[in-house]
Amino acid sequence: MREHLIIIKVGGKIVEEEASLKSLLKDFSRIAGNKILVHGGGKTATVIAEKLGIETKMVDGRRITDADTLKVATMVYAGLVNKNVVAGLQALGNNAIGLTGADLDIIRAVKRLVADIDYGFVGDINWVNANALAELLQDGAIPVIAPITHDGKGSLLNTNADTIASELATSLSSRYEVRLIFCFEKSGVLMNETDEKSMISEIDPKQFEELKAEGIISGGMIPKLENGFNAMRRGVNSVVITSANGLSGLRGTRLVL
Amino acid sequence: MREHLIIIKVGGKIVEEEASLKSLLKDFSRIAGNKILVHGGGKTATVIAEKLGIETKMVDGRRITDADTLKVATMVYAGLVNKNVVAGLQALGNNAIGLTGADLDIIRAVKRLVADIDYGFVGDINWVNANALAELLQDGAIPVIAPITHDGKGSLLNTNADTIASELATSLSSRYEVRLIFCFEKSGVLMNETDEKSMISEIDPKQFEELKAEGIISGGMIPKLENGFNAMRRGVNSVVITSANGLSGLRGTRLVL
Repeated sequence: MREHLIIIKVGGKIVEEEASLKSLLKDFSRIAGNKILVHGGGKTATVIAEKLGIETKMVDGRRITDADTLKVATMVYAGLVNKNVVAGLQALGNNAIGLTGADLDIIRAVKRLVADIDYGFVGDINWVNANALAELLQDGAIPVIAPITHDGKGSLLNTNADTIASELATSLSSRYEVRLIFCFEKSGVLMNETDEKSMISEIDPKQFEELKAEGIISGGMIPKLENGFNAMRRGVNSVVITSANGLSGLRGTRLVL
Repeated sequence: MREHLIIIKVGGKIVEEEASLKSLLKDFSRIAGNKILVHGGGKTATVIAEKLGIETKMVDGRRITDADTLKVATMVYAGLVNKNVVAGLQALGNNAIGLTGADLDIIRAVKRLVADIDYGFVGDINWVNANALAELLQDGAIPVIAPITHDGKGSLLNTNADTIASELATSLSSRYEVRLIFCFEKSGVLMNETDEKSMISEIDPKQFEELKAEGIISGGMIPKLENGFNAMRRGVNSVVITSANGLSGLRGTRLVL
């Protein structure tokens, strides 16, 4: 029997607001066994960048992470947010350790280059150091991962937290029975964005394509589901999309292949 | 034969300036065997706090760390500085891991309360989790420690990096032959502040008291030496005060009891 591992990804908004953070930490701390928390970056970085007079650059509607923006992301995600989550979990008796991809070389990425657009310091994941993570888990540590990776050449890189969560899940699925849970503002995948009761309890790739074509699934939900299906195809046992109230993964929308 | 461990403390200025950081990382990466890097916080935090409109509060000439100042310290020391040092060491083949006192609960502190003055979120160290640090060292990891600790109740605390270095050294001296090296701007303890050639190669507690009474040793050098002598009395094998060019500890001022 292989051990279980639960990987929970929470959005930046949840960890940056005091009330939702407190409730998240309480719920997360109660989960028994091996677990990893991956957090995103919320609006704090944008607010601080603005105050520091750092302009947000957009190309074709996409944000560019220049050197100054990367600095702010590193400060806010790897410093402020990550360490407050760690201190909060420690206070609840959870032996948390905050990590970026650079620490113990756990996530190596490569700077994204797409055709003519230089997205700046944005990283696409090359590989995950599952050994190092498994060792920490075996020692009873609880990794808390910030959405910052590195290129192995000295540069930190801003990296999507959903992608980090699914790459970690995939990579660790060779050693653990992995349950991957994406927490966001809604209770799951909704047929009607404004009606929480319209949540679908299961979704498969065919339905996903149909709902995407109809425009019912759009925006940030698309890469989330793509990441989720990919993770399942590559060995992850279960993937659930739910709200921060559904950490255990028993509620929400379950992905099926 | 017990294993050796070298603990190097560098000032914030060294890690915050690109040229000196680069040279430090190169020298540090060449040190063989068990090693820990403790870095201080430099002026970046003050600069960023000013830009963010956070006022520096002073009471009796001492800086007060209010909640906003602590946030900036956490962002800059635990985020920006710490993770760039880690990424830089990884690029040089050193398996660095960046930590605050909250991570793996390695340094527990208590909020300082002195008579009538509330220094705010400043921590005095209660204990060091030598087990957790020794486990990381045994796994070949190189801890890089930011000057932030926690109180075990969910609060992060700003903590003096010299004190962190000497407490780590003391605590780990029960398992390792520890060499503690404080790096700062000068080549060592100088008899004449403006003349590097006036460096004394050795200092004992009696000389220290005399030079302090004469005003030759003053300012930040006093706690540095007090920390150093205390560490030696509590089992640390050798303590050296030197410049960042003397990382190996072969140059500089050696403390003797």
